[in-house]
Amino acid sequence: MTVFEQAGDRVIALLSSGNLAGTQAVTSLLRQRCAAGSAAPNLWTAATMFDVAALVADAMRDIERRDSPHMAKSSLAFNASFILAGQIGKEPMRLFRIYAEGNFIEAGLDTPFLQTGEAKYGKPIIDRVITPTTSLPDATKCVLVSFDSTMRSNLSVGMPIDLICYERDSLRISRRRRFDQGDPYFAALSDEWRDGVRGVFTRLPDLQW
Amino acid sequence: MTVFEQAGDRVIALLSSGNLAGTQAVTSLLRQRCAAGSAAPNLWTAATMFDVAALVADAMRDIERRDSPHMAKSSLAFNASFILAGQIGKEPMRLFRIYAEGNFIEAGLDTPFLQTGEAKYGKPIIDRVITPTTSLPDATKCVLVSFDSTMRSNLSVGMPIDLICYERDSLRISRRRRFDQGDPYFAALSDEWRDGVRGVFTRLPDLQW
Repeated sequence: MTVFEQAGDRVIALLSSGNLAGTQAVTSLLRQRCAAGSAAPNLWTAATMFDVAALVADAMRDIERRDSPHMAKSSLAFNASFILAGQIGKEPMRLFRIYAEGNFIEAGLDTPFLQTGEAKYGKPIIDRVITPTTSLPDATKCVLVSFDSTMRSNLSVGMPIDLICYERDSLRISRRRRFDQGDPYFAALSDEWRDGVRGVFTRLPDLQW
Repeated sequence: MTVFEQAGDRVIALLSSGNLAGTQAVTSLLRQRCAAGSAAPNLWTAATMFDVAALVADAMRDIERRDSPHMAKSSLAFNASFILAGQIGKEPMRLFRIYAEGNFIEAGLDTPFLQTGEAKYGKPIIDRVITPTTSLPDATKCVLVSFDSTMRSNLSVGMPIDLICYERDSLRISRRRRFDQGDPYFAALSDEWRDGVRGVFTRLPDLQW
């Protein structure tokens, strides 16, 4: 997770999936363009989150242009993708998923969440729980349970988990947490979820053939 | 689901995923090769489930050879794949997943289940429940709950569900069921699972930031 925060003005968070060389290069380029004295449009000067999404896409396309001819020699492709979330000034909060090609979709009332990377194992619990009126504490638990299922079903997905819980119109980050291997809260959540789900399963009626 | 059953001698079940033209052609070819008077090796004469898997692969490759040059003109590829399960004579039960290329893997004690097609949404519950000692009634419920999650998370997956529950060494199918839209047992299972999972979720402890 990469965060661009100017309290009272803007909070922008970027989550990445895909090839690490690609995602690191994109975030480095975005940071560099934010540096003092930079004349280029950047994440500190962008007026809207839509403009931020376009700036991320521009950086992705710059890296893709630079690297992909060389990666193609090894049959590799630039496959970085991002989730972009945040709020600027008086604009509402906005949430985007930016594909490797640089085009993007935005979350709305019908689709109040977005995932990237190894998304499918963890989607059913989000589908069952998250609505536009879900409380922030419930949304927090849900995303952690979703990651727990994903890590169980794909051992190549692992800690740490970076989590921000952003309160609408606060324009500052007050709740941020990293969960590392062995985190006591995460472990308790994981155990209670496992036992609870198994309990529900056990009580389901058997099929009468 | 396509079943080849000769009670007392063999039970062979094929489940397919991918392009329907491809999977139908493969099962038609397999049936045709089984027809009376056929001199070619076929599913009635195969001595082992490994040989059956190879015969399925042969049929897939025959269809692929015939169709793929024409599909390639529309940038399509032969993408049929199969789950093959069954038992022949004194051989143990065996379970295979046959990839579109015709190579295949076999289930074992470490991996007592195989999925194909839209597999990820439904995998977490199987990972949590299924072991080599799971009872047949529990395995039955589990596969249905897994499909329920999959259908919720991908609306393009739908009924009917074809289910066989095969008892080791019985060499005949005694429990077979098709679940159509609106099946009362499936609907009850789906509702109880949804309510139960939400209940477990609600009781999880909130994160203390």
